[in-house]
Amino acid sequence: MSETICALATAPGGALGMIRISGAQALEILSRIFSKDLSTAQANTIHYGHIQTPPPSEGLGEFLPEIIDEVLVSVFRAPHSYTGEDSAEISCHGSRYILNKVLELLVANGCRMAQPGEYTMRAYLNGKMDLSQAEAVADLIASSNKATHDIAMSQLRGQFSSLLAQLRNQLLKLTSLLELELDFSDHEDLEFADRKELYLLAKDIDKHVTHLVHSFEMGNALKQGIPVAIVGKTNVGKSTLLNRLLKDDRAIVSDVHGTTRDTIEDTIDIQGITFRFIDTAGIRQTTDQVEQIGIERTFQAIEKARIVLWIIDQKPLMEEINEVLQRTESKKLIIVINKIDKANNNGYNLLNLPFVAISAKQGMGIDALEQAIIEAADIPTLADSDFIVTNARHYDALTRSHDSIQHVINGLQMQLSGDLLSEDLRQALDALAEITGGQITPNEVLGNIFKNFCVGK
Amino acid sequence: MSETICALATAPGGALGMIRISGAQALEILSRIFSKDLSTAQANTIHYGHIQTPPPSEGLGEFLPEIIDEVLVSVFRAPHSYTGEDSAEISCHGSRYILNKVLELLVANGCRMAQPGEYTMRAYLNGKMDLSQAEAVADLIASSNKATHDIAMSQLRGQFSSLLAQLRNQLLKLTSLLELELDFSDHEDLEFADRKELYLLAKDIDKHVTHLVHSFEMGNALKQGIPVAIVGKTNVGKSTLLNRLLKDDRAIVSDVHGTTRDTIEDTIDIQGITFRFIDTAGIRQTTDQVEQIGIERTFQAIEKARIVLWIIDQKPLMEEINEVLQRTESKKLIIVINKIDKANNNGYNLLNLPFVAISAKQGMGIDALEQAIIEAADIPTLADSDFIVTNARHYDALTRSHDSIQHVINGLQMQLSGDLLSEDLRQALDALAEITGGQITPNEVLGNIFKNFCVGK
Repeated sequence: MSETICALATAPGGALGMIRISGAQALEILSRIFSKDLSTAQANTIHYGHIQTPPPSEGLGEFLPEIIDEVLVSVFRAPHSYTGEDSAEISCHGSRYILNKVLELLVANGCRMAQPGEYTMRAYLNGKMDLSQAEAVADLIASSNKATHDIAMSQLRGQFSSLLAQLRNQLLKLTSLLELELDFSDHEDLEFADRKELYLLAKDIDKHVTHLVHSFEMGNALKQGIPVAIVGKTNVGKSTLLNRLLKDDRAIVSDVHGTTRDTIEDTIDIQGITFRFIDTAGIRQTTDQVEQIGIERTFQAIEKARIVLWIIDQKPLMEEINEVLQRTESKKLIIVINKIDKANNNGYNLLNLPFVAISAKQGMGIDALEQAIIEAADIPTLADSDFIVTNARHYDALTRSHDSIQHVINGLQMQLSGDLLSEDLRQALDALAEITGGQITPNEVLGNIFKNFCVGK
Repeated sequence: MSETICALATAPGGALGMIRISGAQALEILSRIFSKDLSTAQANTIHYGHIQTPPPSEGLGEFLPEIIDEVLVSVFRAPHSYTGEDSAEISCHGSRYILNKVLELLVANGCRMAQPGEYTMRAYLNGKMDLSQAEAVADLIASSNKATHDIAMSQLRGQFSSLLAQLRNQLLKLTSLLELELDFSDHEDLEFADRKELYLLAKDIDKHVTHLVHSFEMGNALKQGIPVAIVGKTNVGKSTLLNRLLKDDRAIVSDVHGTTRDTIEDTIDIQGITFRFIDTAGIRQTTDQVEQIGIERTFQAIEKARIVLWIIDQKPLMEEINEVLQRTESKKLIIVINKIDKANNNGYNLLNLPFVAISAKQGMGIDALEQAIIEAADIPTLADSDFIVTNARHYDALTRSHDSIQHVINGLQMQLSGDLLSEDLRQALDALAEITGGQITPNEVLGNIFKNFCVGK
């Protein structure tokens, strides 16, 4: 923490790049390679100048500095900075040469290259945010759709932390009521009434913790993209439909910079939710060996999916219908009739099953299909009183807290005495405290949390 | 120019991203989606707040803004900004969702997405820089080594512009001397002396312009990387040598972000100069058909190269030596004896040809080889009075100027009268003026110049 750190905070390759410096010596070090002295610069001010090579330590004779770049430097003063330390941000041109050279000069003049997440770790250690908020920073940067963004932003702004604080307060209340009970344990008539109250209170806390534990399944699906299998025979229009859905998911940023969509080509955002489309081969097309493998793959895709789109363009055989219904029993099945722009393609009677009629080619019925997918996803709305857990560490802690609370509830039912329950209560409290890092968090845990951050944050 | 523009100025994918806004309404528009009013914010100040959805235009009832991000906004005021207009920079988290959403909100509230290079074009049109300086901005961002960086930086800082201004002044002096000559054309004795002076002056101007024209070959090679062919038999250690040279060219930035080196794997920086290594097959290994194609490729690589590294690990046949010497007659040939760590591999007698002895595997002799490559490249040092032209548009204008000056020189030798030379002089002047854009530059030319910029600059 005593060292001054530097790192590139933006991705390399743009018109501009931003290099962050943080630590007690940030402005002193920067002043050595900047054309102006920033050591007395005021907080939240911007300074235009050059990043240049410093004079040799034996400062005799003429010295002509090598000018690396014309830059803007933003100055921040402790404690009113992201890390809580003196900090500076250099906005320079985005060439690889310049970015390297500026970092090299900073390191040569006393900075150390920052570790992944080190700025946010310092922010946490300096009390600028709790641990769950720090983790939300990484989630926010990684979020690519409205659903995960909103969860991360709500977590960053402390909504999850205050929910946890409420639960901890209730657990503390339970603890003090138990202690009260111990104090008055000779009043037998009092005890009975208290026990019921204690039980109800524990059940109420458990309800909330259970809700959070269960939300992780959804949170994880939102983070990874909700898996959707598109199944159907060849030429039924699966690719056309994927392309059609993809068109509604145009990103200004990736378009402008001509970045390829390679890695996200099979994920599509619909109304702010990311769906991950699982590639499938055709279903029950022939009986030959090669096709059989394709069909096997389709069934595997269905297994992995949460939602199955079954695309048909003609009335399927009863046998097919039964097989699909059977295979998708535990899934949300959406039957999609494609090519409705063709004259002969109306009014199926699918055993009176509901369906969505579309023409992927003409773009007909796509809104209705998107709506059906959203409804099938069944995403809970993020109300003020609610939260969706997306972090595996939080899930683990909540699960342990939940187990301990269960022990308390069972103990209360079994009329165990208060002192026998206190250890479980303490564990339930500690597990919740781990999430926000209220207690002292071991370095190993901190290391694990921040190692997955990007450098520069 | 009356519109307010916005764009992402950094590459997407980092911890942070920066969005630039410029135009008369920059701060007014930004205030609509920012948690604070910036319309009276002072120049060069930084403001912490939220980017959020604006209230509906029918502002009745309760409205809870959707918070997109916690950001820092830098405020710049005309004329003291990059573009010369009121401007703002939003430093936000680098998620694709956030970057898109902020740009969407800006566009929905009155901004237009900027064209490539539009910020720099505005800077030029507002007199913040001349045209060659504007072009240097794009070169600076694209430069990946010290040589091209230094040229671009010197051009950005106006060194090329002032060199051109000097040349134009001399051409103007020539013009006025010719006019003087016309005025005194009845004094026959005066004319003779003037003619000699005019001729010497024209020759001197021509010398400088010719120097600039010729520098383009080097400038272009520096920009693309100086082409080097590595030839030699299979297993002679070509790949080991390439990897060895590559190790000295480690970039902090690409390492840190784990970016692949795919596109630059065959370019290597040595002492700040980029060399482009051309892949070759083995030379004269066998006489069979397939190998013959490989040998053809080697000869083609030699053709394209400026420097040829011939790697050998045993004494070549006289026939081979003669063939290589003949093929590389117009090139810089460096004979490299590899595997000197092996006992039997010393003291070749290569017709007394100079060579560099190395062990690519052990890293012996690599410094000497790098030095030999640098010397073979024969890069002129960039003195204060000198400049290397890297821009094809400048090269074209300088060539035309050079041609016109040649006409003037020829005319002076042929004793043509001053009024017959004035048109050529004017053309020589105009061609130089095109480079800095001193005259009115047609929109089409501006469009061509700025279309190759990145967006956001």
